[in-house]
Amino acid sequence: MVLTDRVLMGPGPSNPYPEATAGLGRPMLGHLDPEFISTLDETCARLREVWKTANPLTLPVSGTGSAGMEAAFVNTLSPGDVVVVGVNGLFGDRMCDVARRCRAEVIRVDAPWGRALDPQQVLEAHGAPKLIALVHAETSTGVRNDVAAVAEGKGDALLLVDCVTSLGGIPVDIDGWGVDVAYSGTQKCLGVSPGLAPFTMGERAVERRVRDPQSWYLDLGMIGDYTSGATRKYHHTAPISMIFSLHAALGALLEEGLEAAWERHASCGAALQDGLQELGLELWAQEGHRLPELTTVVVPEGVDDAAVRTALLERYGIEIGGGVGPWAGKIWRIGCMGHTARMRNVTLLLGALTELLGR
Amino acid sequence: MVLTDRVLMGPGPSNPYPEATAGLGRPMLGHLDPEFISTLDETCARLREVWKTANPLTLPVSGTGSAGMEAAFVNTLSPGDVVVVGVNGLFGDRMCDVARRCRAEVIRVDAPWGRALDPQQVLEAHGAPKLIALVHAETSTGVRNDVAAVAEGKGDALLLVDCVTSLGGIPVDIDGWGVDVAYSGTQKCLGVSPGLAPFTMGERAVERRVRDPQSWYLDLGMIGDYTSGATRKYHHTAPISMIFSLHAALGALLEEGLEAAWERHASCGAALQDGLQELGLELWAQEGHRLPELTTVVVPEGVDDAAVRTALLERYGIEIGGGVGPWAGKIWRIGCMGHTARMRNVTLLLGALTELLGR
Repeated sequence: MVLTDRVLMGPGPSNPYPEATAGLGRPMLGHLDPEFISTLDETCARLREVWKTANPLTLPVSGTGSAGMEAAFVNTLSPGDVVVVGVNGLFGDRMCDVARRCRAEVIRVDAPWGRALDPQQVLEAHGAPKLIALVHAETSTGVRNDVAAVAEGKGDALLLVDCVTSLGGIPVDIDGWGVDVAYSGTQKCLGVSPGLAPFTMGERAVERRVRDPQSWYLDLGMIGDYTSGATRKYHHTAPISMIFSLHAALGALLEEGLEAAWERHASCGAALQDGLQELGLELWAQEGHRLPELTTVVVPEGVDDAAVRTALLERYGIEIGGGVGPWAGKIWRIGCMGHTARMRNVTLLLGALTELLGR
Repeated sequence: MVLTDRVLMGPGPSNPYPEATAGLGRPMLGHLDPEFISTLDETCARLREVWKTANPLTLPVSGTGSAGMEAAFVNTLSPGDVVVVGVNGLFGDRMCDVARRCRAEVIRVDAPWGRALDPQQVLEAHGAPKLIALVHAETSTGVRNDVAAVAEGKGDALLLVDCVTSLGGIPVDIDGWGVDVAYSGTQKCLGVSPGLAPFTMGERAVERRVRDPQSWYLDLGMIGDYTSGATRKYHHTAPISMIFSLHAALGALLEEGLEAAWERHASCGAALQDGLQELGLELWAQEGHRLPELTTVVVPEGVDDAAVRTALLERYGIEIGGGVGPWAGKIWRIGCMGHTARMRNVTLLLGALTELLGR
């Protein structure tokens, strides 16, 4: 079988760090093996560094980022609880659906896709919600929402933040900001295969958490007894290889330095966005709120969205993403995350687009 | 870093097939890449062969076996629905907890741990349940339950079966028996790292499935639109590397032949059980219902359970499992599953036990 490899510049997965790929090949160990347990402990400790938190309940949930979202809501919301959700893209919208299935009372605060949420509007949507939820980096639009501003005004409410496309790529500061619950995914800026959801929950949220959540698989009380409890009580079999891979990638990230990795994502994003504009393309996300790790650009008039993406894939082996929802066919989403966030990939994509668009 | 490898003869994970390990290293592809989609399609087709089913809704759920259990129940049971659960071990007990969280009316039919369920008792527990659920191979006890007998008498009820420790190791015949919903795990007889739950659901169950399940992540309507729908509508990012690994392992399994793999598990299990008895050890599971792939044996009087398991691990690199629940400290659970199911491992373990127990 001939294998294909790609330069992954879509909305995720990104190209994994070489250390992540090597980690997948570590020999299998049992999920109660002392050596695996110590690797798991170290993984959770590394996650705390990356999340910038001291939260004891910090761990990789055994599913993709969307499982992290579900774990966050089912352990926080009981039927009838009020939750305010900021929605300016697909993933804010998804939060509303997940919260609704917890039978919570969902109050949406919408902003147009492509623009940032207004923190004040989110804070004023309800007098005393149990929970406020928003997405830090909207993968569907390339917009960064101002988590710090919402955190500052949250009062007694708990704050839940989706960091799927931010963790490891742009500054995230769980304890500094005062975020109570957050989750991410491994396949974006962390540069690991999809399949785990880094997760953290602070003391205020732990005290108010749902004691008997509707999900058995994502019951953080029971999961926490395994990952950090004294008895290591078996809950479900941990995804060993994926945890080895995350462990290795986090090690590489921390060795590079979190600030250096943010800087790498920032400079690649800036070079990409400058280069696209030099090609005459129009950036789509609101200025001042653009993510460096995920750039959205308007498909130029007269250009066939799908034909360009297919040519990039087939002729150059480069994947970029199309728009979703109302923006399908109208924008491109270009990721530069994890191991993909290297100048060589920016140069390659700009060269390919120059050739394809005849600029 | 010095890496440790083990001969994994506990209740799972088993040692992965070499093809499974190689599959993990395939270059990353996007979850909408045509080449990934075709590998996913082939994986689902291979799963149908292994499950012995024509069910279109056959796929790997993006979580461990327990996520498969949760997917099975949340898509089948609405609040107030009656479910009869056969319980003769930890995983039957877990089914009751998962079904309770769906707010179903749960009717337990208990048999003592270590003995098989009485199919007649399960069938007579309620006049018209929506669902009957049981575990095929109880990982906590080493007992095989008679799925075919329950299937034969199920009438209008749906039948849900846990095949976590049976699929790929002993005969499973979804369509031949008439099982409506089943799930497995990758880390047992399929010889893949933990992290995916092979899943299948037949037409009767699809017609009666819950339309708006409480879990977003495990909503099979939406997942099915991605795995087998015409539009490949994005739901969550598929765990690419794990699916590559499963794809490769299933290829190896089908090349060996399903019957040949069953025979390999059967002969290794028989040799192990004979050998343990020759050492004077007493098999624990009910005779006539013993699993070849998971053997339970009584810890001999005067022998320290933990000390023997630690010595096996540290001196020989062999993992075996202890008892769980009421049987912790009283039995050992010895797996011989997937790539571990080789005569050389049986010989090694018997040799090590002979030395350690001074027989």
